[in-house]
Amino acid sequence: MAKTTGRLHRRTLARLRSELAELMRTVRHLRAAAALLSWDQETQMPAKAADSRARHLATLEGLIYRELTSSRARRLAERLTAVLPHLPDRDQRMARLFLREFHRAAAVPQSFAERLAYTQAMAVDSWRYARQENDFYLFAPYLQQLVQLKREQAEYYGYTEHPYDALLELYEPGMRLSTVRPLLEHVVQRMRELLQWVQQHERPRILLPPVSCTAQFILGRHLCTTIGFDLERGRVDYSAHPFSTAIAANDVRITTRCSEQDPRMCVYSLLHELGHALYDQNIPAELADTFAGEGASMGIHESQSLLWEDIIGRSLAFCRWSLPLWRYYSVGAGSSAWERVTAEQLFRALNSVEPSLIRTEADEVTYHMHILLRLELEEALLMGKLRVKELPEAWNAGMERLLGIRPPDDRTGCLQDIHWSLGDFGYFPSYSLGKLYAAMFWKRLRQDIPDVDESIAQGDFEPILTWLRRHIYGVGALETPEEILHRVTGERLSADAFVDYITDKLRLVYSDAL
Amino acid sequence: MAKTTGRLHRRTLARLRSELAELMRTVRHLRAAAALLSWDQETQMPAKAADSRARHLATLEGLIYRELTSSRARRLAERLTAVLPHLPDRDQRMARLFLREFHRAAAVPQSFAERLAYTQAMAVDSWRYARQENDFYLFAPYLQQLVQLKREQAEYYGYTEHPYDALLELYEPGMRLSTVRPLLEHVVQRMRELLQWVQQHERPRILLPPVSCTAQFILGRHLCTTIGFDLERGRVDYSAHPFSTAIAANDVRITTRCSEQDPRMCVYSLLHELGHALYDQNIPAELADTFAGEGASMGIHESQSLLWEDIIGRSLAFCRWSLPLWRYYSVGAGSSAWERVTAEQLFRALNSVEPSLIRTEADEVTYHMHILLRLELEEALLMGKLRVKELPEAWNAGMERLLGIRPPDDRTGCLQDIHWSLGDFGYFPSYSLGKLYAAMFWKRLRQDIPDVDESIAQGDFEPILTWLRRHIYGVGALETPEEILHRVTGERLSADAFVDYITDKLRLVYSDAL
Repeated sequence: MAKTTGRLHRRTLARLRSELAELMRTVRHLRAAAALLSWDQETQMPAKAADSRARHLATLEGLIYRELTSSRARRLAERLTAVLPHLPDRDQRMARLFLREFHRAAAVPQSFAERLAYTQAMAVDSWRYARQENDFYLFAPYLQQLVQLKREQAEYYGYTEHPYDALLELYEPGMRLSTVRPLLEHVVQRMRELLQWVQQHERPRILLPPVSCTAQFILGRHLCTTIGFDLERGRVDYSAHPFSTAIAANDVRITTRCSEQDPRMCVYSLLHELGHALYDQNIPAELADTFAGEGASMGIHESQSLLWEDIIGRSLAFCRWSLPLWRYYSVGAGSSAWERVTAEQLFRALNSVEPSLIRTEADEVTYHMHILLRLELEEALLMGKLRVKELPEAWNAGMERLLGIRPPDDRTGCLQDIHWSLGDFGYFPSYSLGKLYAAMFWKRLRQDIPDVDESIAQGDFEPILTWLRRHIYGVGALETPEEILHRVTGERLSADAFVDYITDKLRLVYSDAL
Repeated sequence: MAKTTGRLHRRTLARLRSELAELMRTVRHLRAAAALLSWDQETQMPAKAADSRARHLATLEGLIYRELTSSRARRLAERLTAVLPHLPDRDQRMARLFLREFHRAAAVPQSFAERLAYTQAMAVDSWRYARQENDFYLFAPYLQQLVQLKREQAEYYGYTEHPYDALLELYEPGMRLSTVRPLLEHVVQRMRELLQWVQQHERPRILLPPVSCTAQFILGRHLCTTIGFDLERGRVDYSAHPFSTAIAANDVRITTRCSEQDPRMCVYSLLHELGHALYDQNIPAELADTFAGEGASMGIHESQSLLWEDIIGRSLAFCRWSLPLWRYYSVGAGSSAWERVTAEQLFRALNSVEPSLIRTEADEVTYHMHILLRLELEEALLMGKLRVKELPEAWNAGMERLLGIRPPDDRTGCLQDIHWSLGDFGYFPSYSLGKLYAAMFWKRLRQDIPDVDESIAQGDFEPILTWLRRHIYGVGALETPEEILHRVTGERLSADAFVDYITDKLRLVYSDAL
């Protein structure tokens, strides 16, 4: 009897595996096509193609939806659910990833999925125009529609505590507003104290000499490829808003933007996207066509971008390695000025702390105030406590409350981020969570590789990459964020490692010894 | 009774229309996505992404096949077939376009479609390698398989006269081997006479001064946009092999390549692709998501590219307009030499006639010998009169018979074209048909716009574009090639207009007056 069951089980398992693999492959390939259409939209697409592109993307979304809600998918979901506890661990994890997507798709009608995709694609265009024209009210009607759609989406998905949880779940599986909000408020409280300390220890501001945009781009690309970004398996381009996209593990594309005034922007945007890209380029090939062939969550993904951009990229060791490259690539106006910059000055310039208007340019301390503001506003919009037309004023008031500064216009205020236009409500907390994860990973990595600073100062990033491959990249999304964090650090999520890391760093930045 | 039927019919018609529209839209959007993936593959994709890209494209192809053979498509096809004669003219035409695609997909079993797709993917790779190694026998086993598959495909599709007709139908609906072969033989006979005449009137060859690749590209783009290519609804890029692709009517992309030695290549490749692009950019928006939202056939499409590249682009009037632009953009080495070039010399350099080995570089006279050779060989291979391993010798013998020159190797012989490796048997005649269509359209256009040469010489192309919009672009694929030709010219397909056109031109090119 056991023998027969065993044989039957093996055959059943093989069939389930192959059906699951085929379904996931189709969805992943459709998503790859959509990812390319979106990348092209940001980097190559002719100006007047926005509408047709939006409709093409909506059709692909619709097909993914159809794939995930087909009778075949439904039957597979039923059978997987029935045998779930009896599946081998890896199959069980894969099945859970599929079931999560299946339930998400099955929860909303196709017309809703298509409406959401279309509205998002149109909204992003309108956001771009509104931002260019510096007028929130050109974007407001689309935002209004998106807020309404997001409310509906939360109801379709369902939640136990708060509608916002249903959206958070999309980016950070298992996370709740009741966890992330107090955590973020705690971080912000500690950062306010730190900001006060910094303001008491003010030192003259260091301005980096100018570097031409072309040179910034080439320098940034040089840093990325030296660290480990493979240009035969990816690209670097310009776009209005820097991003990273994985069309395939062998086709990972990052973008950046540039400011002649602030040469840090281009390079550190690239180092940020590099962190995402290294993650995506290093996920095992055998996971590529499965739902495990991507990052474990947005928070874990952001932990990788912030690890490279901030923790490694803004370290004194990194400045020691990269300063000669800044000098090498700075030709023309700023060239001789760069000869006089020291690694310590570069370190201080990269880590100066000061309240500012733009999130993506904020320092590591005030960054979390930007995130808390967005979390509060998202929650208020979603719950109807705030009306869309009141957003600019609420934004500006929040900036004054949290950072003591007030945006002079929409462009530097509530129009600065692309996220809402993409329908990404619930995404912003991932950035702060990512920083907390990153600091916890980094603490563990330093214990495992005590001489990591010397490696960085010598431009040898292989020890770090080897560690990341082994501990983070290798599992793709087979483990949950919580599992990864616990396996790697032995601890549960907390702000301690981050607070320690940033306090130590700022003591150094603002010390007289430097 | 009639009233009830009328009401029922209206409702049925509305439902049929909406179901048909939805199905066509999904297929068209999947094809748009595939078109972008292919464009990106040729212009942007990182080197090591080829394998994943091929698999993404295969998935999209599979989804299109599934869409066209779904039970929904089958039911729709049955109902449309039943009511076809009772449909209004436009609906009937749309239904026919759908039924053609439906029958094509339904005619072959999925296993055959997959085998063909797989073999093509392998064959194109093997062709590339064989061409690089200059050894036909590396490609022969794949060609053998493809010939066999094309025989099977012809049987699946069905035909009344000749298996080759089933393949021709894919590119030129309604065309038959019994029509195109004698027609092409007649053209070739007349071209041989013309070639003899040319060789008796030999004049010293004119070499154009060098122009840098960048300048060629900018000049080519300048010509295209001045003529009417809308850069807000399209792009111009480099690629290894020039092509045009319509991702949407507002997103039409053309590419070119360049040779420092021969400045004609870049510019005239662009003018060729421009012809395709103007067609695609001007197809009415309301046809975009239907099977009528594209060219009427490959032949009609080629008529547009050849009209702009050869008939207009290589005219004396065009040389008079474009010469100052050649001068303006030729900076550096060839700059002063361009000051001495006359419009008449440019005209002669662009129209020199001489047998040559490579089809894509052939002049307007000898081009048709290249096409007849391929048509003969395709027919012989398909019917088993010629074995694949005998192809190189048959090719070389044909070149000697038709053009009096013999390729020294496979690379300049039977390995020069990509088409067979892509499974495109029956495609080549479209090029010659396109030229015959183009000459017939042109003859009519000159009657309608007697001062067209003056417009061209002044760089005013609006009269030509207005004419083309009205007579060709506006119907998309709603009319058959035959219908378009008859409506526009009042005549049936013949070689007369082309023979007259080319004879007149060469008399001018080789006259002593010039």
